[in-house]
Formats: sequence, structure tokens, C-alpha cells
Amino acid sequence: MSTPVAPVGEAAPGRRADLARLSLNTATTKHLTLAQAAAAAADAGLSSIGVWRDRVQEVGADVAATVVADHGLRVSSLCRGGFLTTADDDAARAALDDNRLAVREAAMLGTRELVLVVGGLPAASAPGGAALPYPALPHPTGAPAADGPDDPARDVVATRQRVADRIAALAPYAAEHGVRLVLEPLHPMFAADRAVVSTLGQALDLAAPFDPAVVGVVVDTYHVWWDPDLARQIARAGAEGRLAGYQVCDWVLPLAADPLHSRGHVGDGYVDFATITRWVRDAGYTGDVEVEIFHEDVWAAPPGRTLATMAERHVRHVLPHL
Amino acid sequence: MSTPVAPVGEAAPGRRADLARLSLNTATTKHLTLAQAAAAAADAGLSSIGVWRDRVQEVGADVAATVVADHGLRVSSLCRGGFLTTADDDAARAALDDNRLAVREAAMLGTRELVLVVGGLPAASAPGGAALPYPALPHPTGAPAADGPDDPARDVVATRQRVADRIAALAPYAAEHGVRLVLEPLHPMFAADRAVVSTLGQALDLAAPFDPAVVGVVVDTYHVWWDPDLARQIARAGAEGRLAGYQVCDWVLPLAADPLHSRGHVGDGYVDFATITRWVRDAGYTGDVEVEIFHEDVWAAPPGRTLATMAERHVRHVLPHL
Repeated sequence: MSTPVAPVGEAAPGRRADLARLSLNTATTKHLTLAQAAAAAADAGLSSIGVWRDRVQEVGADVAATVVADHGLRVSSLCRGGFLTTADDDAARAALDDNRLAVREAAMLGTRELVLVVGGLPAASAPGGAALPYPALPHPTGAPAADGPDDPARDVVATRQRVADRIAALAPYAAEHGVRLVLEPLHPMFAADRAVVSTLGQALDLAAPFDPAVVGVVVDTYHVWWDPDLARQIARAGAEGRLAGYQVCDWVLPLAADPLHSRGHVGDGYVDFATITRWVRDAGYTGDVEVEIFHEDVWAAPPGRTLATMAERHVRHVLPHL
Repeated sequence: MSTPVAPVGEAAPGRRADLARLSLNTATTKHLTLAQAAAAAADAGLSSIGVWRDRVQEVGADVAATVVADHGLRVSSLCRGGFLTTADDDAARAALDDNRLAVREAAMLGTRELVLVVGGLPAASAPGGAALPYPALPHPTGAPAADGPDDPARDVVATRQRVADRIAALAPYAAEHGVRLVLEPLHPMFAADRAVVSTLGQALDLAAPFDPAVVGVVVDTYHVWWDPDLARQIARAGAEGRLAGYQVCDWVLPLAADPLHSRGHVGDGYVDFATITRWVRDAGYTGDVEVEIFHEDVWAAPPGRTLATMAERHVRHVLPHL
């Protein structure tokens, strides 16, 4: 690790009480190392940070845990495991191994919450979650089957069943390590290439067979704000003890050329944070509120400005309802 | 009308039995007049056409009805009414008037099915459904309310209630004219700017208070393919007698710069048409299958090629399961 770690109290001049539950997800400051992101969060008065595995693995989970602690921060979650949908046996074994590693990393970082993005259709999923370009998608030749899917690689029903099976395979390992597998429903525009889990209700159905301490769900406003069943499913998540995280960013239009990078700061778009935050509060959630923004403009901004905007928007749009 | 109308049998040399339920939605051949689109559909052996109001209004609904009949075609649906979400009283009156006109147009065209795209959030809806550009979205000033939405123009719950109220206002008029208001759930990526009705289940809930002959729903594969509850809701639509249309096109990646224009020909993307078509068949649907594609490449293609591709894909991916 090249960045020196300052002792607690020096890099972290003071926590702000109004930001006690605000967490910086490292995806928001994409270009910063973990140490830089932790310093930025601490400087802004935050108490916690949500960390992505790439920034953790750069230094190793043991060093990462020290970096975070030395800045006086908690880890609100580890992002992300998942990508469990492959139909190939070898690839499935590799995916499960990687998720077990993520479980160990979460335990080393002292966070209980490991966020999982489950993966998309086999036809659309590539390592890293990249989609095949249109119109190169192959279709099987031969006569169409009258009673099967058009193509197993497009079979979303079977793909979802594999997710269920693989969560079952991972759950005992997570339980042993005191880590919770946190299912993240992604916006349906990512159903083909990133996550065949598209609604909070569906995530809760997948979680239902397991102990709430072992399989939970996260509410990310960008992904679920549109859901007509959202109020009911957030309440259900709370009642079931599965509400493991609350991530916020805004839905802005027009969508970016890469819609994955189309998120805005809280308050810049169309999400009604007051209402959704009250639903989350009323469900009994007392955890951190992670800001996780993927947007080229945010990534290009000075980190200090990003943190200041996060803090201002939190106090304005989220905190009064939390 | 400048295009001469050929007598039936001349412009329509022969219907193809395997295309008896395939319908050309005029949005697929965006640059054609109604007469040109009708000729293309008839030439390809189709029996029906789904028409958009812009192409109808160019010639008037009475002439449009003659054009379609003279090509020996049925009208499978009229697209589209809706955009009913405004919070402004004058704009609401104008929207209801326009929808009553659409009801009369549908009746004149001899179709029972008037498709409605209900409209988006007031903050994002402009005439024609255009979205405000990021980051120009205004936010109200002043202290945040602790018990209301962040902004009424972002209040998706209240916006949906206005949709329900306005369908109630339109239903008696539609019933008098023998026309069905067909609610179209749009993909959730259009929830802010085009339709706060995002799932088939939500559309059926909205339709529930009304006679199934007066308020129905349409299944458009592009919008609903990802829905984990789709099989159940299609069956429900059939059981309730509300399944008023089946529109097909494919989900292709990457999304186009304007995601509204990102649809592909059946078979070019990730939708499992075999499975969804069987769900629609098993729900008792015996109506037309409209191909409605918004894509610059499709619009730029020669209409004859577009119709030939439509026919080939229908026979390959849809017909065996219909």
C-alpha cells in the first residue's frame, strides 16, 4: 500500500452527528484508492464506508481492514459478490469459489453485509458482466421446439432457479463466517446482462428459505423506485428482518449512453426520497445510508466536492425522513 | 389522401394462412403513410394492421378506415391514447378530450382496442412525452416537508392515483362507443417520463374496477419480459377476460442512445418468445400478434424487407407456440 495511513483522530478530525448514518460507497469515487476514499469520507465527517472488492483486493483484505479502521470508519457493506447464473459447470464452480472468497473478505473487513448482484442471462453475461453487442447474438439453428424455451441461454425462468440453487450452496458458508448474503434487485433494464432479480419482492422470495441473518436484501433507490409494490415489499423486508442496506442515488434523464453510468446525486432526478426513506424508516431500518453513484460527471469531480454534495443532499432529502 | 387506393384483391393478392394472426403496427414502418403501410402489410400476406393516431389523423379517421378496408385488412388496435398524469386541471381536461377523440377514432376504424400509455411523472412529462434534460430538473426551495413527498411532481403514488381517476372518467365514454381502454405497462426505464404503469399486475389492478369489455391490458414483450411475476399475471389477464393484445419485439443490447428506439426484430435479442407466447396462448388469447418495433435501423430498411423479416421471425419464433 503506497498511501500512508494516518492515526485515528488525525485523518478524522470530527464526525458530524447529522451524517452519522451517511456512508460513502467507493463506487462513487471510482478513481480513488481505498485509502484515498477512506480519507475523503473521514474528512467529510462520515462514520462509514461501503467498499468494492476491486479496491479491497488491490491492498488485500487484511490491510484494507486496517486502512478503514485507521480512519475511524466502519464498513457498511462489501460490494459485490454474485454473478451466479452461468449454465456451465466449471464456470459455476469458479463463481461459487469467488463468492466464498468474498464472504471471507467481508468477515475480515468486519462487515456483516455482502451485496450480491446475481448475474444475467447466460446469453448476455460475459466475465465482468459485459453484454454481447447487438446484433451478434446467436440463435440456435434447427426446428423450433414446441415445448421448450427458444434457447436455454435466454431462459429466464431456469436462470432464476440456478440463482436459488447457488444461494443455497453458499448460505452455510456465509453463516459460518457471520456474513449475510444481501440480494440486490437491479433495475429491469439490467435483467438481460446483470441481474435476473429485478424486484424487491422477488429478492425476498429468493431469501425466504433462509435465516434472515444469512440471506437479506438491499434497497437501492435507483433500481426499485418505480416499483408499484415497493411500499409493501419494504415493509415486508423489515418485518422479516432482512433489510440489510439502503443505497441512494437518483434517476436522471436522459439515460447515459451506458445506462449503468446514468445515476445522479440525490435530488438531481425523479426519485421521491422523502417517501421511500420513510418507508425504509417505518420498516425499522436503523443502518447506514450508502451513496453509490455511477456517473462520469461525478467521477470527474473533485472528491471533496462529491462528498460535500453527498452531505448536503443527505441533510436535505434523506435525513428529515430517516 | 395522395396515394390511390386499390380495390380489395388487387392490392392484396393473397393472405397467408401462417400469417393470419400477424399484424404490422405502423410504428414499425415509421416513414410510411397509412396507405403505404397498409399496402406493405397486404402485399406481405398479412390480414391486419395496428395503426398509430398520427398516421390516421393525416387523412382523417373516416378515410383511414376506407384505406385499411380497401386493402382487405382489419385494424388490430389503435395506438395510442393516454398521457393522463398531469397535475394541472386545464391540461387534464385537454388530455381527457384527446382521449375521447381517440375513442371515436377507434370506433370509426372498427377496432375495439385503444391502447393507452398512461404518462409519466409531472416533473418529467412534457407534451409528446419528452423528458426534461439532466440536470435542469428544478427542485422546490424551502425547508423539506417531514411528511410529504419531496415534490408533488415526483410523487409517483399520487400520479398513479390520477391515472386511476382519469380511467374512471373515460370508461363510460369508451363503453358507449364499444371501445376498450387497453392499459399498456411500459418498461420501468420509462416510469419517469412515459408511464407510471410498469407491470402487468399493476395494469390489471387498475383495470379491476371496470368491465373487462371496457378496460383491458396488452402484453408487449419488450416492456414485460423481465417480470418475475409475468406467467401468473398473463394467466390472470386471460382469466379476467382482459387480455386485449399481444405485441412483440425483442430486447437488444446495448441500449440505443434513445432507449425508446432500442427494440429489435423478434429473435435478435434476449426475449424467450417461445415461453411467453405459450403463456399468452394458455391464457386463451386468440387475437392478433402485432409487431411494434422502434429502431432506427428498422426504420431505415426497405419496408418489404422489414415485412419479410417480420414474417420469417413470426413463423420461426411465435407461430409454433401460438
